[in-house]
Amino acid sequence: VRRVRDLGEFGLVGRIERIARPGARGPVALGIGDDAAVLRLPPGRDLVLTTDALVEDVHFRWRSETPGRLGARLLAVNLSDLAAMGARPAACLLSAQLPPDLPAARLLGVVRGLAAAGARSGCPLVGGNLARARETSLALLVLGAVERGRALRRGAARAGDRIFVTGSLGGAALALARLERGGRSPRPVPIPRLRAGQALARLPGAGACIDVSDGLLADLGHLLRASGVGAEIDLGRVPRPRGFEAACRRLGLDPGRLLLAGGEDYELLFTVRPGAPGAALLRRRLGVAVSEIGVVTRRGLRVRGGPRPIRPGTPGGWRHF
Amino acid sequence: VRRVRDLGEFGLVGRIERIARPGARGPVALGIGDDAAVLRLPPGRDLVLTTDALVEDVHFRWRSETPGRLGARLLAVNLSDLAAMGARPAACLLSAQLPPDLPAARLLGVVRGLAAAGARSGCPLVGGNLARARETSLALLVLGAVERGRALRRGAARAGDRIFVTGSLGGAALALARLERGGRSPRPVPIPRLRAGQALARLPGAGACIDVSDGLLADLGHLLRASGVGAEIDLGRVPRPRGFEAACRRLGLDPGRLLLAGGEDYELLFTVRPGAPGAALLRRRLGVAVSEIGVVTRRGLRVRGGPRPIRPGTPGGWRHF
Repeated sequence: VRRVRDLGEFGLVGRIERIARPGARGPVALGIGDDAAVLRLPPGRDLVLTTDALVEDVHFRWRSETPGRLGARLLAVNLSDLAAMGARPAACLLSAQLPPDLPAARLLGVVRGLAAAGARSGCPLVGGNLARARETSLALLVLGAVERGRALRRGAARAGDRIFVTGSLGGAALALARLERGGRSPRPVPIPRLRAGQALARLPGAGACIDVSDGLLADLGHLLRASGVGAEIDLGRVPRPRGFEAACRRLGLDPGRLLLAGGEDYELLFTVRPGAPGAALLRRRLGVAVSEIGVVTRRGLRVRGGPRPIRPGTPGGWRHF
Repeated sequence: VRRVRDLGEFGLVGRIERIARPGARGPVALGIGDDAAVLRLPPGRDLVLTTDALVEDVHFRWRSETPGRLGARLLAVNLSDLAAMGARPAACLLSAQLPPDLPAARLLGVVRGLAAAGARSGCPLVGGNLARARETSLALLVLGAVERGRALRRGAARAGDRIFVTGSLGGAALALARLERGGRSPRPVPIPRLRAGQALARLPGAGACIDVSDGLLADLGHLLRASGVGAEIDLGRVPRPRGFEAACRRLGLDPGRLLLAGGEDYELLFTVRPGAPGAALLRRRLGVAVSEIGVVTRRGLRVRGGPRPIRPGTPGGWRHF
């Protein structure tokens, strides 16, 4: 087995460059191999920048995920943040901290998965950095662009807005629970809602937007705090995968808990002004299933049909530390 | 002592936001606290993106560096890459992987040092990510801008170009050697040659450029490979700090080795076309000391006055793995 230390930094960078090059077109004036990457974007755009990391034994285990899926996941979780801003991806950079005895094929597999997913999403890998470390951590930086002044923000909700969510929630938490109980099917790689976010950014009457990575209540909480408002949502209207309740019961899980606090679904949670299009028209505009789950209020957070009273400040969801 | 886990992600992000906010003006349309940062740059610019990381016990030790200096260093090593492209800084994002029991003051100290240095360099901290890990690693992403088509590249050297370096080399390696032998004075925080790089990008007759982070021969090697050329340099003309040879002798170090292979000086190594201004005029234009150390040839690398024959492919310098 060839290790990271056997190939060395420059051997690895050369291989990464060859993997990434085919996707590096479009806005890329200068890709991997110089002191920095150079991009040329169309005029009249605001730049959108975000970064997210996956750490070994915290966010993934080599045993339970192929390197290619890991690379695709790393890109997806970052693209989800771009989607929540209504931005179009432009390029990404990988900062990889690696143990010297890591099999080089793992890193190159991550890069392959990342580059392939990046080519599909218009988000080429244009640079990065390799550093020695005791454990693997992979930080990805993603750059996107949105029409000037059109970025969707967490803080733009107003009392009276209607609250929507794309797709369905709880599925990722269910898959993780299955995996933890010895299940064989791998965690699904999330599909970032890029087109939906971009369509929402163009929609007259769009309010605030956030992606649901930490759990519905946690991320709704972020949105409400940033906007200085409250909300009332209806658990019965929170969209869930088919057969969700039965699957939860088989595993002894509380479906309401997974819907409200399960993370990593990477759907978009957004608000629209009262006079804006309803779910049917939104679905057509955004090109994805959308469900209306509640309304923005002046203050507080009420969950109708929730499994127990929700106290402010304890929204559940993923804890990073 | 308050630990990272005591403050939690949102407690830390709130503190980081308060530290970083005063510097977040200029191109920053939306800073820390949303799904992504939003920047609005002047038109007619190419974007320049680079990332570099500092890993605990590999690139730094908490015992021998204050958090503030570490933050300033993290920014400086990244800005040096922007300088080598001739770019002006615009913003940075911090991806911090942290053990939960890390004293929170260390992270906040890093952010303070980073934000203060960023405010001085026009490079505000606009976003990032915090993730749990077993060891601390800090990856910084820096975005800059350069006039369209003006970015300095490694691959632009031509046979006949004259080779220059800013400032002096060997000083960082000497400081590190002193520290390793029990010295008390901390490693100097490098000063990225931003203005020199920006002036060089505007200079008619500028050739290739790279920053000297891995060591003169290693980085010259990168530049020559990217350009498909060779070089002849003169060790006697490589600029060094005052009293360098005597200080090396006291520590039993070979000064030639430190000049050729010592890393982390973060000076600019660049070439100019044969008819371009000489050292005196370059010095004035670039606003920094510059020394002519050799000439670009068709192939090979010769070092006059070198301590031993230089074999291609073994240029010395910092090894990352």
